[in-house]
Amino acid sequence: MLAFDNILNRIEQEISQLTFPYPPKSLYEPIEYILALGGKRIRPACVLMACNLYTDSVEKALRPAVGLEVFHNFTLLHDDLMDHADKRRNKPTVHTVWDANTAILSGDAMLIAAYQLMIQTESDALKKILDLFTVTALEICGGQQYDMEFETRDRVTEAEYLEMIRLKTAVLLGCAFKMGALLANAPETDAEHLYQYGINIGLAFQLQDDLLDVYGNTATFGKNIGGDIISNKKTFMLIRALATATPSQQAELTRWLEMKTFDPQEKIAAVTAIYNEAGVKTASEVKIQEYYDSAMSHLESLSVDPSRTYIIKEVCSRLMNRQS
Amino acid sequence: MLAFDNILNRIEQEISQLTFPYPPKSLYEPIEYILALGGKRIRPACVLMACNLYTDSVEKALRPAVGLEVFHNFTLLHDDLMDHADKRRNKPTVHTVWDANTAILSGDAMLIAAYQLMIQTESDALKKILDLFTVTALEICGGQQYDMEFETRDRVTEAEYLEMIRLKTAVLLGCAFKMGALLANAPETDAEHLYQYGINIGLAFQLQDDLLDVYGNTATFGKNIGGDIISNKKTFMLIRALATATPSQQAELTRWLEMKTFDPQEKIAAVTAIYNEAGVKTASEVKIQEYYDSAMSHLESLSVDPSRTYIIKEVCSRLMNRQS
Repeated sequence: MLAFDNILNRIEQEISQLTFPYPPKSLYEPIEYILALGGKRIRPACVLMACNLYTDSVEKALRPAVGLEVFHNFTLLHDDLMDHADKRRNKPTVHTVWDANTAILSGDAMLIAAYQLMIQTESDALKKILDLFTVTALEICGGQQYDMEFETRDRVTEAEYLEMIRLKTAVLLGCAFKMGALLANAPETDAEHLYQYGINIGLAFQLQDDLLDVYGNTATFGKNIGGDIISNKKTFMLIRALATATPSQQAELTRWLEMKTFDPQEKIAAVTAIYNEAGVKTASEVKIQEYYDSAMSHLESLSVDPSRTYIIKEVCSRLMNRQS
Repeated sequence: MLAFDNILNRIEQEISQLTFPYPPKSLYEPIEYILALGGKRIRPACVLMACNLYTDSVEKALRPAVGLEVFHNFTLLHDDLMDHADKRRNKPTVHTVWDANTAILSGDAMLIAAYQLMIQTESDALKKILDLFTVTALEICGGQQYDMEFETRDRVTEAEYLEMIRLKTAVLLGCAFKMGALLANAPETDAEHLYQYGINIGLAFQLQDDLLDVYGNTATFGKNIGGDIISNKKTFMLIRALATATPSQQAELTRWLEMKTFDPQEKIAAVTAIYNEAGVKTASEVKIQEYYDSAMSHLESLSVDPSRTYIIKEVCSRLMNRQS
């Protein structure tokens, strides 16, 4: 089996060798720019790790894996434009360096380039991976649409929030793991377990990310703490607090949500205190553990020797940023 | 062989039955809106007409053909946003009815939906048509990029303009005809002749469109005459006039191009008069005829019985809006 570092090196090498021989060059500069910003390359790594469970030769999966990374970066490019985000990985976003039209058109070319990589496989599973990728890509657009719609809605239910993060984040991990299995001609039941593993681990990741946005350590989290609280983002914790806190806690929470001018640190401290008192930090941790356990049970249901799943478990556990 | 009306009916029926079963519905409403605006459906018709040259059963080609129409409408949706166009087929554009973010995201979903239709074929030419479509789609993005860049450039050469319209308009017709041939397992040389037929007929169509923008009859052309002259659009005729007119004609033309305030009808009349005197109307007609003749020679090089190409010739000649 391949070591995780080998997998990452192979992906980085492939990304650095991507060429776009179609005119004009100016259309592809923003694509090269955003791909060079880096990132954990976790989605292509999931494709190759899943493939590697069944075969030592992951070459057939390399181009589709990189296609998934190009697709992921396309969603970031267009999402940043729609969300008016200035920074991505601490660098100016594409529409900031160039302009909105460039971000739209280069993003479109990037989505097409993702498909071009996806079809560059000698695997006979081509049609299956294209079906999977295409449905996933539509679901991700749906997730972004929900995310934008939720911003202007008064209330969002817990089920709606979980469905939104499933679509926006989790399905791409499910797709990555399943695609690796399909490209290795793994049994259908294994491919489905790997899909469910990705969905559950993806939901756990996103809820963990929301939790760290409130409780994380600025030095290790990589972004500012409390951003979700300041922007009234309807996360699992806020939704749960609004639904289960005592009337006085809810009143206090609503007062902060409706406040137009406030000291950011004061709001963060006050809302965090309500989260603590209302037990939503614990509720969030319980939910994360449930998804994590469910993910693990799918991994343990695979037909492969359990020792082969070690790298996937290790990488995902590291990404969960757990102390244990 | 299928009559042209049968082909169009089959396409309209298929478009009206398109369903997008992925949440949320709000993501797909703009897609249904733009597809319901109509249009000549010429690109999917080209796929089916080409396929029908070789086989009576065009079912295998229907979904990919409609995919090409969905793709074409996706480009209109994003182009209208980039060009800040308010109207499309006399109806408000998607970003006007909804907003820019909706146009971006529903456009993205539409591009993915085009691929989803493209892969819904039982043909064993799947990989070939995906390669063809993907390269074509990237070229079309390149054409739009050139078109936008040319707006802010002082001078554009004739070769650059022809390359821009080849990418923005002609390659999709080439792709449509070739795709129909590939889906019918036509000989490679025929597929290539049909591609070249589409390229040449597409260039002829676009130059004819530019000509009608100046010399057309408002009642039959369907848009206002002189739009390109008012906006200083660097068309074949303007480029040719700037390159070949007499010094005094060039000076007069430049004066109109640089004028900030003017009476639109006066500018249209003055520039049209220069075009007439400088012989660029004739030059344009000669160029159109060259492309048209070249297209015909490719059609006549096909291995099929010449009688089978009658419908394609008839439809294209009608689209050329010729009096003859």
